[in-house]
Amino acid sequence: MVAVMASSVLLGETLTQILIPAAALVGIGFALLQWFLVSKVKVSPELDGVTNNGYSDRLIEDEEENVDAADVITKCADIQTAISVGATSFLFTEYKYLGYFMSIFGVIIFLFLGSVKGFSTQSEACTYNPSKLCKPALANAVFSTVAFWLGALTSVLSGFLGMKIATFANARTTLEARKGVGKAFIIAFRSGAVMGFLLAANGLLVLYISINLFRLYYGDDWEGLYESITGYGLGGSSMALFGRVGGGIYTKAADVGADLVGKVERNIPEDDPRNPAVIADNVGDNVGDIAGMGSDLFGSYAESTCAALFVASISSFGTSHDYSAMSYPLIISSMGIVVCLITTLFATDIFEIKNVSEIEPSLKRQLLISTVLMTVGIAAVSLVSLPSEFTLFNFGTTKTVKNWYLFFCVSIGLWAGLAIGYTTEYYTSNAYSPVQDVADSCRTGAATNVIFGLALGYKSVIIPIFAIAIAIYVSFSLAAMYGIAVAALGMLSTIATGLAIDAYGPISDNAGGIAEMAGMSHKIRDRTDALDAAGNTTAAIGKGFAIGSAALVSLALFGAFVSRAGIEAVDVLTPKVFIGLIVGAMLPYWFSAMTMKSVGSAALKMVEEVRRQFNSIPGLMEGRAKPDYATCVKISTDASLKEMVPPGALVMLTPLIAGTFFGVETLAGVLAGSLVSGVQVAISASNTGGAWDNAKKYIEAGRSDHARSLGPKGSDPHKAAVIGDTIGDPLKDTSGPSLNILIKLMAVESLVFAPFFAAHGGILFKWL
Amino acid sequence: MVAVMASSVLLGETLTQILIPAAALVGIGFALLQWFLVSKVKVSPELDGVTNNGYSDRLIEDEEENVDAADVITKCADIQTAISVGATSFLFTEYKYLGYFMSIFGVIIFLFLGSVKGFSTQSEACTYNPSKLCKPALANAVFSTVAFWLGALTSVLSGFLGMKIATFANARTTLEARKGVGKAFIIAFRSGAVMGFLLAANGLLVLYISINLFRLYYGDDWEGLYESITGYGLGGSSMALFGRVGGGIYTKAADVGADLVGKVERNIPEDDPRNPAVIADNVGDNVGDIAGMGSDLFGSYAESTCAALFVASISSFGTSHDYSAMSYPLIISSMGIVVCLITTLFATDIFEIKNVSEIEPSLKRQLLISTVLMTVGIAAVSLVSLPSEFTLFNFGTTKTVKNWYLFFCVSIGLWAGLAIGYTTEYYTSNAYSPVQDVADSCRTGAATNVIFGLALGYKSVIIPIFAIAIAIYVSFSLAAMYGIAVAALGMLSTIATGLAIDAYGPISDNAGGIAEMAGMSHKIRDRTDALDAAGNTTAAIGKGFAIGSAALVSLALFGAFVSRAGIEAVDVLTPKVFIGLIVGAMLPYWFSAMTMKSVGSAALKMVEEVRRQFNSIPGLMEGRAKPDYATCVKISTDASLKEMVPPGALVMLTPLIAGTFFGVETLAGVLAGSLVSGVQVAISASNTGGAWDNAKKYIEAGRSDHARSLGPKGSDPHKAAVIGDTIGDPLKDTSGPSLNILIKLMAVESLVFAPFFAAHGGILFKWL
Repeated sequence: MVAVMASSVLLGETLTQILIPAAALVGIGFALLQWFLVSKVKVSPELDGVTNNGYSDRLIEDEEENVDAADVITKCADIQTAISVGATSFLFTEYKYLGYFMSIFGVIIFLFLGSVKGFSTQSEACTYNPSKLCKPALANAVFSTVAFWLGALTSVLSGFLGMKIATFANARTTLEARKGVGKAFIIAFRSGAVMGFLLAANGLLVLYISINLFRLYYGDDWEGLYESITGYGLGGSSMALFGRVGGGIYTKAADVGADLVGKVERNIPEDDPRNPAVIADNVGDNVGDIAGMGSDLFGSYAESTCAALFVASISSFGTSHDYSAMSYPLIISSMGIVVCLITTLFATDIFEIKNVSEIEPSLKRQLLISTVLMTVGIAAVSLVSLPSEFTLFNFGTTKTVKNWYLFFCVSIGLWAGLAIGYTTEYYTSNAYSPVQDVADSCRTGAATNVIFGLALGYKSVIIPIFAIAIAIYVSFSLAAMYGIAVAALGMLSTIATGLAIDAYGPISDNAGGIAEMAGMSHKIRDRTDALDAAGNTTAAIGKGFAIGSAALVSLALFGAFVSRAGIEAVDVLTPKVFIGLIVGAMLPYWFSAMTMKSVGSAALKMVEEVRRQFNSIPGLMEGRAKPDYATCVKISTDASLKEMVPPGALVMLTPLIAGTFFGVETLAGVLAGSLVSGVQVAISASNTGGAWDNAKKYIEAGRSDHARSLGPKGSDPHKAAVIGDTIGDPLKDTSGPSLNILIKLMAVESLVFAPFFAAHGGILFKWL
Repeated sequence: MVAVMASSVLLGETLTQILIPAAALVGIGFALLQWFLVSKVKVSPELDGVTNNGYSDRLIEDEEENVDAADVITKCADIQTAISVGATSFLFTEYKYLGYFMSIFGVIIFLFLGSVKGFSTQSEACTYNPSKLCKPALANAVFSTVAFWLGALTSVLSGFLGMKIATFANARTTLEARKGVGKAFIIAFRSGAVMGFLLAANGLLVLYISINLFRLYYGDDWEGLYESITGYGLGGSSMALFGRVGGGIYTKAADVGADLVGKVERNIPEDDPRNPAVIADNVGDNVGDIAGMGSDLFGSYAESTCAALFVASISSFGTSHDYSAMSYPLIISSMGIVVCLITTLFATDIFEIKNVSEIEPSLKRQLLISTVLMTVGIAAVSLVSLPSEFTLFNFGTTKTVKNWYLFFCVSIGLWAGLAIGYTTEYYTSNAYSPVQDVADSCRTGAATNVIFGLALGYKSVIIPIFAIAIAIYVSFSLAAMYGIAVAALGMLSTIATGLAIDAYGPISDNAGGIAEMAGMSHKIRDRTDALDAAGNTTAAIGKGFAIGSAALVSLALFGAFVSRAGIEAVDVLTPKVFIGLIVGAMLPYWFSAMTMKSVGSAALKMVEEVRRQFNSIPGLMEGRAKPDYATCVKISTDASLKEMVPPGALVMLTPLIAGTFFGVETLAGVLAGSLVSGVQVAISASNTGGAWDNAKKYIEAGRSDHARSLGPKGSDPHKAAVIGDTIGDPLKDTSGPSLNILIKLMAVESLVFAPFFAAHGGILFKWL
């Protein structure tokens, strides 16, 4: 096969060098603008023009008149501060420990990769182009470590900024809910957009700058350059793992503990300020669903970009140093920022939400608009930045590819994401029959609720898996592993919109909590509940995206690993591979067992503490005394920091152990097994949990005859629904979403360590 | 590589021809002896020497004196008859429908396989030895179809006989419980042994006879002969699938329905005769856990034997027509019958059970004794029936193997089975901390119970998977696919003992039900409860064996399929294989969604009927009127017959669709994916369910301070435990155990249809 190379790439290097950072800066600017718009809602009584004896008419509706508005605002401000302080302090503590971990793991990367050629500083023949000289393995060790740290830092930044804006927006959403559901929606959505755009733009910018800085050393050795850059993905995902697991345990220990005593034993509402665990619960939403999710999606984004860049570096435009074509993944992401910016305007400025039934359709419309616009964007980018024909590396052979092939690869990933999103919505929204059936099964108690809920989760796997399979088949057939990598990138190209509608969920959840705690009226609480119910669905959609993209990313990383490790085929019918496959398929279960048990144990501790406070603090139930929120926050903090270590170790150590002792074939089996099994567990766990939560909300809201026949709050079916909701908490917010990190993190770690495993791995089999 | 062939096989053909049927007949004779011993317990008052006004002192203990013994016996006899009639009538109805299915599917097999060479009657060159002439494809079509029907019939026989002895033994166990727990144990155990030995011996005998009859036509063409014999495995497993799924839905619809109204709403005990669903529940144990399990394990046994025979037929002793070496799998099974016979004597004649705490250790000891003895047996068989060195076919290459390699292959399967059994016992018995922790979590309600139970199930997967992985690695490395097949056979070689301790469970469960319904004393009910609790554990162990062996069997069948379909490698990194892998990994979820939803829906119908009867039959709650048991039996029957169709179709059609439209590579991916994913789902579902059931029993029995602090019956923790138990029902008795049939049935079906797929399959990809 001849390496055909068309010279006419329309986008030159200079223009590429301008466009990428420009798009990133536009994204950051847009995020700051949204932040500014959110900040115009004031949460201090003086600035709001409201005094103790005069209301601003504009703000206040009838039903609020018996509530002291200034008092409500002060309460909101206090609660917001408590949540923000709690979340910030937890994240700082978490990041401190993770800082130690990252330092040590960075050194491990350096030592493992440095040892490949015995820390030699000699240049060596390139792997894929042996006629040229490449930089030494030691340079790869150094730059991979640096990239790892950069990725980790960007991930921390993504999570932290997301948490900051979320805790800034929650009380503002509550206050806006007094004006109507539409106003509250816009605040929550804008805040989500801040997070989405900051994350997408930061990720792109840091990666862009890193590549250009690394190039100063690597020069023409793009193979070495992009190999080292993969460390960025590893850093991002490592932080995401601990963020997801730690945050997930934190939030669900508090949530489950609060519900078990508050709702079940004491019969007080969710988020009642008398419940000592209520602040911890709300802090948890911000550190788990916001910061954890942010780090997670940043990780996916970084990994799919790194996988695509690595595979591209050994393609014809890599070896011929075509910078624009090489930067195709980054240009796709740049286009994504622009598309999402336009999409956001539809939600914030063009369509207006007037009542609660419009919330979900509006969020769904965001997905559809961004997907349609992005398809056009991909076509444009593929046309101008890629040569019309080029060759790709395909496990030892080369494959000739046309630029419009890649348009299909990216697009099919994008549309598969939409299919996953819509399927998730169907199975987790209480507007459709699956969740309504689950709610109906509560008539006969918690047992049937759980049986139906589990069955729903299992069933919800079918369409996403077919969507992923089709995306894989098409993109793999058209452009081998590069096709898979850009398909993943396609699914993530609208990440800013995806994150906006995802982050919207926990913000609304917090807003509802604040409304309850501040003693706001039933009507306002109804509005925040409706926002929250839509939020459960969008959170599930966000998880669906995260899982779907993780599957594609992992496969791309897996392919890159196989290339880098020099494996020719991963044949299931060899014992080394098969045992890897079956053990890999087991890992998601082991991991879930750990995280669920952690949540359960931490929740039990929380229950004891909450019970203790109810029993020992006089006047707490009557609302005359304040609970001791801090102790509950401490229980969640301690539990999550302690309990995230074993599952984290399982994920981080498995590739190292499998690669070092059993070799690259077994490790390849482990990666494939954990990928195909983990995707199923993750999707079913997320959707089961989301469905239970919304079945409960369906009964509570009582918006149809059917729903009213199951309610009201406190009825037997409602109690059964609460049990389902509680079981779903660790499934949907701890185990499920952490699993997608498990599969992609093991893949990227294997990719980074591949040269070591290829050189020194498999010592057990060698010894046998 | 040279095909080395030692001529000195110690066991000649004549001796082999005598020993195999002799062992089978000994097994049948031993089963009949056990049946005779069980039948000595009489369930009619007259024959028992008891009249209305005089008790036989020997039989009656103090606490029985206020109960009319003759009345009790009459009641037991009535209930037994009702259960037996219900079970027989259900099985006849089920078999009638399955008869239609089997006829049609037999024709499909004939048409598909006949069409491979256009129904030509010409002999053709052999695949693995092209210098020879083999029988035409049409003969393969005919004999595969016949073998399929024979397998189906034997499967039906296995299930039906098991049900007959179980419904014969249940009331006898109850009556013996009056004499003490040891006596009752022996009756239950002997009855289990009847089933175990009948099944093992029948399976062996029918296979032996079939091979010899087929040989009359095939003569020297062993390749064709053993290819056709694989139909036997397909027939066995097809029936097992419907038996398991249909029986599983039947029993759990009744069980869940009965519990939800009886235990939860009406607060009456389990198996209370006032509950209209109680007969259906007890019928269900016999058609699901007994007949279904019997068919299932027979299927595994038949498939592993067929897989081993098929692989052997293309090895050196196949091509050189060494009958004894060829019959190695059958000789292993023959030895297994003898070993199990000796093992059974330990339980029935050597050790005596004196109190309830000895039940579980005694059953565990059975496993250990049979494993140790069988290891010696395997050594003997390997030495006398195999040449000291021979060659095996290994995907295009040949592999030289020594006879003691095979000793290790069979033994490691056997010991892996023991490891799985012991692990299962640890995670499901209430003597150990995992179940006690689950019970303890009921303090905080059903939600934590479910979270801990799910986590337990996930965790219980770890050791079995490592055991399976090690068994696969060792046997694969030593003797390629033949090693895997005989490892599976090793795990199943002690099937008679395994089934005995497994069938013991539902028999004890029924015995407890009869004791309750017949109004026997609390003390006797305690004894049957203790037998039943041990039975839950042994049932879980039995499922563990079924799943573990299914994993090995499927892999062996998968290997045989790959050989027969002429695939060179199943490379994960080709799109065709990978999409198969990920979709295959999804199938267990799809299947579980269907079966769980079926149980849930059927249970809801049952709940309505039971509620209707309680509300409309005057005097039912007070025990003055009899409920209408027949309607509940009808609901379970109709539901199971209707609902078993979709999951059955999913399993039976998937290989046909994948093979025909996507081709053998994708199908290979599907098989590997469903195998590695299904094993995890199956093990975790079974163990979670078993643990919940025993956590409930732990609280009810109250044998420790900890247990008493959670009880008594009716306490809040107990109610939470009942919810867990109910959720576990479909997991452990419908979805979980059916999944192992899913994985092996798809594999054996692919193997049988391989020539068709290889010749005409993959039309979709060809068209693209």
